[in-house]
Amino acid sequence: MRQAGRYLPEYLQTRSRAASFLDLCFTPGLAAEVTLQPVRRFDFDAAILFSDILVVPHALGRSVRFIEGEGPQLDPIGREVGLLDASRVSERLRPVFETVRIVRSELAAEKALIGFCGAPWTVATYMIAGRGSSDQLAARRFALERPTEMEKLIGVLTEVSAEYLVGQLKAGADAVKIFDSWAGVLDDEGFRALAIEPVRRIIEKVRAVLPSAPVIAFPRGAGARLGEYAEAVKADAIAVDWTTPMATARNLISVPTALQGNLDPLRLRIGGRALDDGVDEILSAMVGCAHIFNLGHGISPDTPVEHVAHLVQRVRSRDR
Amino acid sequence: MRQAGRYLPEYLQTRSRAASFLDLCFTPGLAAEVTLQPVRRFDFDAAILFSDILVVPHALGRSVRFIEGEGPQLDPIGREVGLLDASRVSERLRPVFETVRIVRSELAAEKALIGFCGAPWTVATYMIAGRGSSDQLAARRFALERPTEMEKLIGVLTEVSAEYLVGQLKAGADAVKIFDSWAGVLDDEGFRALAIEPVRRIIEKVRAVLPSAPVIAFPRGAGARLGEYAEAVKADAIAVDWTTPMATARNLISVPTALQGNLDPLRLRIGGRALDDGVDEILSAMVGCAHIFNLGHGISPDTPVEHVAHLVQRVRSRDR
Repeated sequence: MRQAGRYLPEYLQTRSRAASFLDLCFTPGLAAEVTLQPVRRFDFDAAILFSDILVVPHALGRSVRFIEGEGPQLDPIGREVGLLDASRVSERLRPVFETVRIVRSELAAEKALIGFCGAPWTVATYMIAGRGSSDQLAARRFALERPTEMEKLIGVLTEVSAEYLVGQLKAGADAVKIFDSWAGVLDDEGFRALAIEPVRRIIEKVRAVLPSAPVIAFPRGAGARLGEYAEAVKADAIAVDWTTPMATARNLISVPTALQGNLDPLRLRIGGRALDDGVDEILSAMVGCAHIFNLGHGISPDTPVEHVAHLVQRVRSRDR
Repeated sequence: MRQAGRYLPEYLQTRSRAASFLDLCFTPGLAAEVTLQPVRRFDFDAAILFSDILVVPHALGRSVRFIEGEGPQLDPIGREVGLLDASRVSERLRPVFETVRIVRSELAAEKALIGFCGAPWTVATYMIAGRGSSDQLAARRFALERPTEMEKLIGVLTEVSAEYLVGQLKAGADAVKIFDSWAGVLDDEGFRALAIEPVRRIIEKVRAVLPSAPVIAFPRGAGARLGEYAEAVKADAIAVDWTTPMATARNLISVPTALQGNLDPLRLRIGGRALDDGVDEILSAMVGCAHIFNLGHGISPDTPVEHVAHLVQRVRSRDR
């Protein structure tokens, strides 16, 4: 999940220097600065590249706007799926690679830098609906009613995402993460075709170029399907959202993989016992298992910074 | 799930005779009519009582309004949790019991009548937020910040819901179903305290009065937690939403229970191969297991009625 954000005063200050959110993502000096700020303040073990999953449709030539307080807006894609031009993607994403280079050079050697992209299904939901939604009805309908166009769209996004992750890794990212925020709304057939298969192929393509690059996959809402997912995509780590207990995730996944997760961001926002109980339960469940402590979803903008500092301190002290 | 609804012309006609949606739920002649209409048209094996989960807060004296096209609106509850008066609930819900009596007397003997209530957590989310939401942040926050008031609210709803289900069963319902539409947003601790425990207690209370009454529990979004849930609540059947494959649900649940589910309503709306493939996959997965075929969530208002007729025909022909 993003470490930077509106809960940090230094983020707001840097943000005000960019004309738009996309501008912030595409200005290496500013994006590198907001990537580094949370690590400086909280001494996290890893930095998360500051960017957005929608830089990929932008690089494919689609219009992407971030409207303050309304979330992203795109021109919904239709028949023009066949016209998507992937040839300039790497060139258009060069500022992101430059951000990675700057961050890696400024980050302490013992800190990891994690790059990322959106999974093809999740990126497609925004491209099809033109905005976020909670049930992804437009994209699910598109998949069932226009299967050929959906396959084409997912195919392009799979190619481009693999290329994008390889670019980040070559620029210095120590690991990459694939976010499938909307994997959970798919039914059985959809989950296999649209969530599992494209991510499996991305990981395969990345490994064909960089065999030892660590890849984390985050199928949000996969729930009972975590085992099938982990077995198929062969990621080095699986990230778990807060609605599947870590102990349950351990039981469901039979292939060797690290697990990342999964504090409910609401507990971090509220603090006190709600926070401590949540942290302790996760750490207890993960004893003896390769574990990257993380939130189970994005941080709330109104999270007090002291809660984040307290979280790091508690995880570190219990960890010993 | 509701069988009646805006996709049926006869429903729209009866609906127009009630001043409001709540009026329709509380006028036994009209509510019985819309309960029976889908069974007459499609020859379903069971009728689903036409009502709403929010009749319970209404019976507790809370203001509940259904605004056309906007969903339900309630006065968000706060400190007055302690003042909730459960003493008049059965009296206020008497029209629902009367509806059950009428439907049972008009329904063919071989058809079952299924009554229902909302699970305490799901009803509480509406009472706390005053409306529906997709993340239930207000209720989740209330649970963590005001645990004593939450416990009181869940306690009242648990008592009242058990009483309500007993009333429906005594009036002639052949089975009852407990809908926990928002179970899936809870983290581990919340799921156990707010989704599992109240439903376990309702079923225990219903059985204390009517030991052989069949109870179905529907923890939407439970995903990987279906096994733990089924083991704890001891329902006669567990309903599964469309995001957990039926085969996976079978594997997760180790206690003997029937399963209900779980066609994605979108497949019913689209029809054709999307519908047939979905139906066939579910039926194949459920061979040799006690199974109630059902949608995995509510029917879309724009579902063509011929698709529903086709679904029934396909399930029946494959079933033999």
